Amino acid sequence: MTNVAIVYFSGYGHTAKQAEAVRAGAAKKAAATLYAIDKEGNLPESAMEAISKADAVIYGSPTYMGGPAWQFKKFADASSKLWFNQALKNKVAAGFTNSASTNGDKFATIAYSWTLAQQHGQVWVGTGLLPANRKDSNPDDVNWSAGFGGALAISPSDASPEEAPRKGDLETARLLGERVAEIAAKLV
Amino acid sequence: MTNVAIVYFSGYGHTAKQAEAVRAGAAKKAAATLYAIDKEGNLPESAMEAISKADAVIYGSPTYMGGPAWQFKKFADASSKLWFNQALKNKVAAGFTNSASTNGDKFATIAYSWTLAQQHGQVWVGTGLLPANRKDSNPDDVNWSAGFGGALAISPSDASPEEAPRKGDLETARLLGERVAEIAAKLV
Amino acid sequence: MTNVAIVYFSGYGHTAKQAEAVRAGAAKKAAATLYAIDKEGNLPESAMEAISKADAVIYGSPTYMGGPAWQFKKFADASSKLWFNQALKNKVAAGFTNSASTNGDKFATIAYSWTLAQQHGQVWVGTGLLPANRKDSNPDDVNWSAGFGGALAISPSDASPEEAPRKGDLETARLLGERVAEIAAKLV
Amino acid sequence: MTNVAIVYFSGYGHTAKQAEAVRAGAAKKAAATLYAIDKEGNLPESAMEAISKADAVIYGSPTYMGGPAWQFKKFADASSKLWFNQALKNKVAAGFTNSASTNGDKFATIAYSWTLAQQHGQVWVGTGLLPANRKDSNPDDVNWSAGFGGALAISPSDASPEEAPRKGDLETARLLGERVAEIAAKLV
Repeated sequence: MTNVAIVYFSGYGHTAKQAEAVRAGAAKKAAATLYAIDKEGNLPESAMEAISKADAVIYGSPTYMGGPAWQFKKFADASSKLWFNQALKNKVAAGFTNSASTNGDKFATIAYSWTLAQQHGQVWVGTGLLPANRKDSNPDDVNWSAGFGGALAISPSDASPEEAPRKGDLETARLLGERVAEIAAKLV
Repeated sequence: MTNVAIVYFSGYGHTAKQAEAVRAGAAKKAAATLYAIDKEGNLPESAMEAISKADAVIYGSPTYMGGPAWQFKKFADASSKLWFNQALKNKVAAGFTNSASTNGDKFATIAYSWTLAQQHGQVWVGTGLLPANRKDSNPDDVNWSAGFGGALAISPSDASPEEAPRKGDLETARLLGERVAEIAAKLV
Repeated sequence: MTNVAIVYFSGYGHTAKQAEAVRAGAAKKAAATLYAIDKEGNLPESAMEAISKADAVIYGSPTYMGGPAWQFKKFADASSKLWFNQALKNKVAAGFTNSASTNGDKFATIAYSWTLAQQHGQVWVGTGLLPANRKDSNPDDVNWSAGFGGALAISPSDASPEEAPRKGDLETARLLGERVAEIAAKLV
Repeated sequence: MTNVAIVYFSGYGHTAKQAEAVRAGAAKKAAATLYAIDKEGNLPESAMEAISKADAVIYGSPTYMGGPAWQFKKFADASSKLWFNQALKNKVAAGFTNSASTNGDKFATIAYSWTLAQQHGQVWVGTGLLPANRKDSNPDDVNWSAGFGGALAISPSDASPEEAPRKGDLETARLLGERVAEIAAKLV
């Protein structure tokens, strides 16, 4: 069975909710496991081992100060151990991010995840979704944020993880997970 | 008097409206002139000459297919004439963009404008605005899109230039123009 | 048989040479065809039709003024016709670029090609190559420029297309073409 | 007197050498102080206080796994304290980076530093240098790497900090420091 690893950091629970949606989507077509980076930017050694053997790795982080959280970057730097022997080469990669604003610098975080994946020789899969960009489009719609390179989510600064990300963003995350699992199955 | 040039392309009139708001903001503190790139990506020679002598150049384009419109890029490539003698060196630069989606790839267009400005040795000025990112924030608010590197605007795919960009985006554009004029005055 | 389209613009012949190397690499494992965008940024309608039916599309452009040449961007904007019906969805994409400097803004051009491909719902494939970055590394080495997201080439400003891109850059381009053909074969 | 803060992380001493060159350049026209982020990504509270009062802040980090080192990103995330009260607004910013390859993903690190600075409402200053990109150009030349948005340096993977960055890269760093001090003096 195809094996999808979702490795992410969440500061306040919103990105964790998005990660769970990605996992649920991937789980429709593959074995899908969440690996949460801790507050110090660490993952257990066993998690690094499992990630190195996955068929696909999906990267997730909130966008903080215009890029991925430092805890995610600490994981990325630690993944240089996998880079040296190109353990992730030819495996699928994808990304997701969440922040308080409608737009902000989320593109930059997704672009970083892609850059990391390219260092690893991974094959990048985006959302493959058209945007919801009409006057009556709203947060309930899939891809209201128009993420193409990765799945985007909005959690307003005064919204709890129970309130946000909202319906459309979670469905977008689920669809990304499912798409990654499908494409990974073809590349195994 | 400080002299601000706003050079932009607009496909359907929405970005032109945003450009006019930038101009109105700059005009509070400087002489401000709009230079519209035509459908073939051209500007009159006299416009290039005027731009080369401005104290600040603000770049504007819709985001099409993940980046600035080709017409804007044609202008950018033609600006290599100014690059050879570094005519814009030390002058202020800023950028704005508009697209149908809330987020999409607008960051990429602003980042390109910055990259262009760096080739020219220009000094980059962003919005300097905090975002409006609470649950009750909406398109009437300044910087609802949370643009920092440049001013962002949303014109839904079924909205006419009379309808969009909306109030908050236009005010954001005005504030960018004013800020550029202020900083350019200090650097002249 | 897998079908790889290489669509590129070349201003002075150096990027054309790089494109030919990409084609030669792809041709080892697939049918590979070059489509040259002309000086006005146009492609014959038949080329657009062929590209829309390819299993993989590799994008190539020199880096001019910090991004792809306007002629390439004109093609990208015209590809919105394919976008509307998602004709390239799930097909492989990759990119290459050439400029006069060792580094410059080539990353930005590759990042743009990725952004374009993500709008199209394509699956991105980078070089998958380790860098040649020791003291005795030189332009004869594969991936001396350390391109991961795409293949990079250097053509010094006073070098003719007979002289540059050099040996290592051309081999890097060949390897990218071959890799794309291999991965496209799995995804067909 | 104008006050320039250089805040940087260095893993093995090469970026520290580049930082010292930036400082020496800035010191020609301003008071210039180095603030080294430690291996755990921390700075003393007094350093954060001093940075918040500087007229210009120059950001430096090696490029690791396609972006700034996590230690630098930890500083960037911690700078959200300055962001809340916009302590750096209207102050000058600039950036530099070093990695083992001629090109690699250094552009991404510089672009991140710009993104961070834009969150802070800072005014960005690049190198303002033309590239050295002829056949006989070499590492002794200023801006051989053709950095525009920031100063780039190459330290081959087997070169000690005594050997690299090399002459041209150090002079490029010095010139960036001097330029930042000059422009900051005008904006104070």
